[in-house]
Amino acid sequence: MNPLLLLDYAGVAVFAATGALAASRKQLDIVGFIFLAAVTGIGGGTLRDVILNIPVFWIGNTVYVLICTAVATFVFFTSHLVASRWKWLLWLDAVGLAAFAAMGAAKGLAITGSPVVAIITGMLTATFGGILRDIVSQEPSVLLRPEIYISAAGAGAAAYVAADWLLAAPGVSALIAFVIALVVRGGALWFGWTLEPYRSKPGRRPEDIP
Amino acid sequence: MNPLLLLDYAGVAVFAATGALAASRKQLDIVGFIFLAAVTGIGGGTLRDVILNIPVFWIGNTVYVLICTAVATFVFFTSHLVASRWKWLLWLDAVGLAAFAAMGAAKGLAITGSPVVAIITGMLTATFGGILRDIVSQEPSVLLRPEIYISAAGAGAAAYVAADWLLAAPGVSALIAFVIALVVRGGALWFGWTLEPYRSKPGRRPEDIP
Amino acid sequence: MNPLLLLDYAGVAVFAATGALAASRKQLDIVGFIFLAAVTGIGGGTLRDVILNIPVFWIGNTVYVLICTAVATFVFFTSHLVASRWKWLLWLDAVGLAAFAAMGAAKGLAITGSPVVAIITGMLTATFGGILRDIVSQEPSVLLRPEIYISAAGAGAAAYVAADWLLAAPGVSALIAFVIALVVRGGALWFGWTLEPYRSKPGRRPEDIP
Repeated sequence: MNPLLLLDYAGVAVFAATGALAASRKQLDIVGFIFLAAVTGIGGGTLRDVILNIPVFWIGNTVYVLICTAVATFVFFTSHLVASRWKWLLWLDAVGLAAFAAMGAAKGLAITGSPVVAIITGMLTATFGGILRDIVSQEPSVLLRPEIYISAAGAGAAAYVAADWLLAAPGVSALIAFVIALVVRGGALWFGWTLEPYRSKPGRRPEDIP
Repeated sequence: MNPLLLLDYAGVAVFAATGALAASRKQLDIVGFIFLAAVTGIGGGTLRDVILNIPVFWIGNTVYVLICTAVATFVFFTSHLVASRWKWLLWLDAVGLAAFAAMGAAKGLAITGSPVVAIITGMLTATFGGILRDIVSQEPSVLLRPEIYISAAGAGAAAYVAADWLLAAPGVSALIAFVIALVVRGGALWFGWTLEPYRSKPGRRPEDIP
Repeated sequence: MNPLLLLDYAGVAVFAATGALAASRKQLDIVGFIFLAAVTGIGGGTLRDVILNIPVFWIGNTVYVLICTAVATFVFFTSHLVASRWKWLLWLDAVGLAAFAAMGAAKGLAITGSPVVAIITGMLTATFGGILRDIVSQEPSVLLRPEIYISAAGAGAAAYVAADWLLAAPGVSALIAFVIALVVRGGALWFGWTLEPYRSKPGRRPEDIP
């Protein structure tokens, strides 16, 4: 099986799981689980394909929607077994972020040939499923957490572009991008890695800003 | 007049009314009413057409935008007469949900021929206008209410697919889908119908989850 | 240089600055600054192009993304110098609103020939970058502020359509539209101009509405 397709299925499955976990916190019913799983699992890639003006990936291949449905159903019946759902969500989200940063960069580069566009589509694909999940379920955005998040997607997408330039082997480049994004985001989760955040000057706290 | 077109106009009008009622709660001016009415009335169908990669329905037929403008203006001058606006919004939203579940499934099936895609486009068309309304007006999402909501859209869209398979008469199938979705959502509003929601195990309340 | 292109670059730059200022309030890192700057700077135009079914403007011309990156980096290192960031954001947002109302109307009219569609694409282009910024950074929406906002975009877009009909000179029409939108929004900020908002009848406060 095509390694890129596998990576894509894996990304959809883990993001779908994070959508279903968000649905469990909101105590939705099973159709709500499936809906939120699908929005999260296929939302980022849908935006990517719409921006690249190519057919949306899940229209021609219903396996993606079936994956979301299966994952949501599984989570509906088992998520009470998971002791700390929020922690699971963050780690699954990290895997999805890494897979979609690779896929998004690969597709953007293949369609446009532009490294800049590829890095953007990698970041968009990796982040918009989670953004949609947090918006639709009205939860705090994972993007605004203090540890590295968007940067991990950017590192993965940039790694894809660099590897493709050196190797011209999409499957290998995607794997390298996936590993790099996952290591960066995983390290951020495990060790609390942050880039230097913007800091207000002393005496100016965020809550002072009118 | 084409019954599908009538259903579409009706769906746009009632969703536009819910957008205008949301604008009244936010005390916007008349242009804000029109904007929020249009976002709600044509947002779901716009997403559907963009995903199906066909021309957006309101570009070629400005009647849709004029309906939103007329409805918003009417609501601007009359909504103080409505005793309980939120209750009205929920019932109008139910009619719009039913109309758009039918329309979304019809268009998805006509374009792609795939029942799975048709059910998804039915659900997306029915829900995204309301999601956009709740996001833009920064109000609690109607999707997260306890009674059946997304499932009603899913039932209508699935009914369309089944009826189309049995009857091959789009107008009749759409009417059946509309009635089924409206009965399910209306029953949910009137009798408080719910599907079994996900429940945390005893001793685990949502607020315990980190 | 084409005056329309200059206006477009200016709009992207100022909206990107508002995104970066929002990132500074959320204390994001530099990649977060760039991401939020890009979402705000190119989000409205992306929606416009997707709805008009034309290639997304920043795919073929990477100058737009580079502008967002440069502006975000500049703001990252200098925004502590700005005494009141929120006030700056509102004025930059006003310039972006005016530029994008003109550009959105120009593109909508050029592609579809419909004045109604042109006014809608003008308003959408002008508002959706800011809507996305406020959603992604989870801040109060600028659309819901009491002074005139959406109406300023509508006035600019309508002015473009009228000027184009009288003059048939896109560059001049765009400049007129830009000035009118900026005067209306600027006046609203400076003098607190409002259109008559919707008011509940006496005895009915918003918080009474169930």
